[in-house]
Amino acid sequence: MYIAMNRFKITPGSEAAFEKVWADRDTHLDRVAGFKEFQLVRGPKHDDHTLYASHTVWESEDAFVDWTKSEAFREAHRNAGDNKALYLGHPEFEGFTVVLDSAKG
Amino acid sequence: MYIAMNRFKITPGSEAAFEKVWADRDTHLDRVAGFKEFQLVRGPKHDDHTLYASHTVWESEDAFVDWTKSEAFREAHRNAGDNKALYLGHPEFEGFTVVLDSAKG
Repeated sequence: MYIAMNRFKITPGSEAAFEKVWADRDTHLDRVAGFKEFQLVRGPKHDDHTLYASHTVWESEDAFVDWTKSEAFREAHRNAGDNKALYLGHPEFEGFTVVLDSAKG
Repeated sequence: MYIAMNRFKITPGSEAAFEKVWADRDTHLDRVAGFKEFQLVRGPKHDDHTLYASHTVWESEDAFVDWTKSEAFREAHRNAGDNKALYLGHPEFEGFTVVLDSAKG
């Protein structure tokens, strides 16, 4: 299992606009092999930004990498540049390999 | 839904020891109300550290906060100070509220 997170620093006052961008977006992920879950998550609020992350869960890192090379990925990111005014700096990607895993039994 | 992550910067060469600490640890989470999932995840490798995170999913932020005030939490963290030599700096906590959520249909 693999978790891909892209961290966004959103300027104060732009939180609702940023959430709306994602709510309106068709990520086309449902049709992608190896995709399991997507969440948009809101993290801590700082003086100059609120941290958000796109949080996706994949069957494997390979499944994620295959997606990043696909037409579905290009389609999902086609308009990504339109919302730069909402961000502080660039999104920061972090990928995580699951080492230990347990769920409520 | 709420995701609680604690980020650990592990010094080069200490990765296996850090993973073993977690593999051997009894977090007592299975009995905690509102707990859903735990993962230990390994992120990007940098020159001076490898990023790890404990990644737990909760029914709500309140369920997580209640846990941090519980005897089970104290028990799970009783020996946390023993492994400081593996870390660069302190663990960094980030809590995330789920704004949008979709799973493969």
